[in-house]
Amino acid sequence: MQFTVRAPASSANLGPGFDAIGIALDLWNSMTIDTNGESGEITSSGTESALLEGRENLTIKAMKTLAREYGRPLPQFSLYAETEVPIARGLGSSASALAVGLVAANHLLNLQLGIDDLFAHAWRIEGHGDNVGAALYGGAVLAVPGMPYAKALLSRGDLGFTVVVFIPEVTGATWAARAALPNDVPHADAAFNVATASGLAVGLLTGDLKLIAASMNDRLHEPYRARLFSHLNDMKMVAREYGAIGACLSGAGPSILAFVPFDAVDAVVSAMRATAIRLGVPGRVIHLSPSFEGATLVPDLVHTR
Amino acid sequence: MQFTVRAPASSANLGPGFDAIGIALDLWNSMTIDTNGESGEITSSGTESALLEGRENLTIKAMKTLAREYGRPLPQFSLYAETEVPIARGLGSSASALAVGLVAANHLLNLQLGIDDLFAHAWRIEGHGDNVGAALYGGAVLAVPGMPYAKALLSRGDLGFTVVVFIPEVTGATWAARAALPNDVPHADAAFNVATASGLAVGLLTGDLKLIAASMNDRLHEPYRARLFSHLNDMKMVAREYGAIGACLSGAGPSILAFVPFDAVDAVVSAMRATAIRLGVPGRVIHLSPSFEGATLVPDLVHTR
Repeated sequence: MQFTVRAPASSANLGPGFDAIGIALDLWNSMTIDTNGESGEITSSGTESALLEGRENLTIKAMKTLAREYGRPLPQFSLYAETEVPIARGLGSSASALAVGLVAANHLLNLQLGIDDLFAHAWRIEGHGDNVGAALYGGAVLAVPGMPYAKALLSRGDLGFTVVVFIPEVTGATWAARAALPNDVPHADAAFNVATASGLAVGLLTGDLKLIAASMNDRLHEPYRARLFSHLNDMKMVAREYGAIGACLSGAGPSILAFVPFDAVDAVVSAMRATAIRLGVPGRVIHLSPSFEGATLVPDLVHTR
Repeated sequence: MQFTVRAPASSANLGPGFDAIGIALDLWNSMTIDTNGESGEITSSGTESALLEGRENLTIKAMKTLAREYGRPLPQFSLYAETEVPIARGLGSSASALAVGLVAANHLLNLQLGIDDLFAHAWRIEGHGDNVGAALYGGAVLAVPGMPYAKALLSRGDLGFTVVVFIPEVTGATWAARAALPNDVPHADAAFNVATASGLAVGLLTGDLKLIAASMNDRLHEPYRARLFSHLNDMKMVAREYGAIGACLSGAGPSILAFVPFDAVDAVVSAMRATAIRLGVPGRVIHLSPSFEGATLVPDLVHTR
C-alpha cells in the first residue's frame, strides 16, 4: 500500500481571532506512506525538510496517537516527505504535519473517521482549533470551544481579496510568543476583541470588505508580541498604506499576513519588501492565495500501480 | 405637524457578545410629536409611563442633541408617549427612547439623515452600539468599533427559534451592573469569549443552531453579574434543560433571555415560571418574537389629517 496525503499551510490567530480564526494558504506539505518500504525509514525533500529532523516527526506522532486511541497497531511503513511550509514562522507547519498524520492514519488503518472526528482529535492534540481546523478543512474557519466542527467562514465564491505574506528568515518560537502574553488583560480590551473578532468572522462570511477592514484590529496578542517582532507594526502599517484591507501577525509570528485586493497586490508586495529591507529584517514577501482545499488523500496513479 | 415614531425593545450584551451583539424584540415604545400642541407638554400612557418621569426624558434629550449637532432649533412641540418596554430591566428601554428621539428629530427638522448616520449619533450618545443598533435597525446586529454601520446578523427568513424572556418585577441599575465588572480579566477568558462571540454572530447569520448552542457561553460579564442576580444561573439552566438553545442575561439584567425552538416554547415558559416562583423572584415569563423592524416613522392617517 502506498499513498500520499497533503495539507496546506495556514495562518492562525487571525487578527483579533486569537485561538479562534484561521485561514488555509496555498502552500503544502505532502507525505507519501509506503507499507512496502523499510519500516521507520524517513526521507524528505523540499525547502523545509528540517521539519523532519531534530524532534519527533509530528506526522508520525499524530498517526501513533490515532492508532493508540482506536487500539490498532500501525503497520510498518516508510515515509517520504515533500515540505513547502516554512517551519517556526507562524504559518502552521505543525498543524499541517498533524493534519497529514491524522488523514494518513485514518486511511492506513481504515478507521473511516469523518473530518469532524479528525478535527476533534486534532484539537485535543494541539490544544486549540484554529490552525488545525484550517489545515484540515481548508478555507477560513472559526473554532469554538465545545463545537463538534470548525465552522467555514469562506465560500469558494469570488473572494474580493487575496493574501500577501512576509516570511522572515529568522524563526520564531511558539512558546516564546505564548510566554509574551499576560495572564490578565483589561476588560475593555477583551470587549474590544469580542466585537472585532465577531466582525472579522462575519466579514469573511459575507464578503464585507469594509467590515473586515474595521475588524482587523487586535488587543489580545499583537500589542504584546510587538516586543518580540520589531517589524510587526511597521509591516502592518505599510501594507494598509499601500492598499491592504487589513494586516496582522500570522499565527505566533514572525510572519505577517495581509488581506489585499487583487489590484493592489503588486504595490503591497513591493512596499513590504522595501520596508523589510529598511528595517533590516531579511525575508521574502510572496503572494499566496487562500486554499479552499484542506488535508487530502492525493489521488496518484503512479503510487498505486 | 403631527407624527408618531416607534422603536422596539432589545436585548444587548447578548450571551458572549458583551457591548457587541444585540437583538430587537417585539415590544414597543411609541411617541407622538405634535407641533400644534402646547410646548413641553408631556403626556403618556402604557405600562411603563415612569419612563417619562423623574429624569430628563431620553427621547427629548436625543432630539435636542441632534438639533444642537446640526445647529437647528427645535420647534415647540408636545409629546404623547405610549410605552410598553419595561424600564431598568435590561430590555433596552433607554435605547428605544433614544432611537425614537433620533428618528423624530430627523423628521421634524427635515435633516434627511440615513439610518447609518443616526446609528453613529446613537453610538456617540450611548457609548456602545449593540442596544441602540438593535433598536434602530431591528433584527440582531453586531456593532464593531470604527464601523460606520451595525451589521445585520438575522435575515427575515425562517429563524428556527424564538425568544422567551423572564422579566423580574425588581429593577436593575445599569451602573451597578457595570460596576460589578472587574478592570482586568484572565487572558484565557478573553480568548474564550472571542471564540464564542464570533460563534454566536456566525451562528445567527447562518441559522446554525448547534453553533449558537455551543456559543451562548460567556466569561466576561455573566459570572460577575451572577452576584447581583441570584436567579441568573438557575434560570439559564432550567431554560436549557427544557429545550432552549441557549440563555443569557438580557442587557445589564435583571431579565433573562432564552432562544427557544417553537415547539419548546410552552415547556420553557412553564419551567421558567415555576423556577421564578421556587426562587422567590416575582416577575413574568413571556414569549417575545425578535423584531425585524427597528425604529420607524409610523404611517398614521389619523395624525396627518
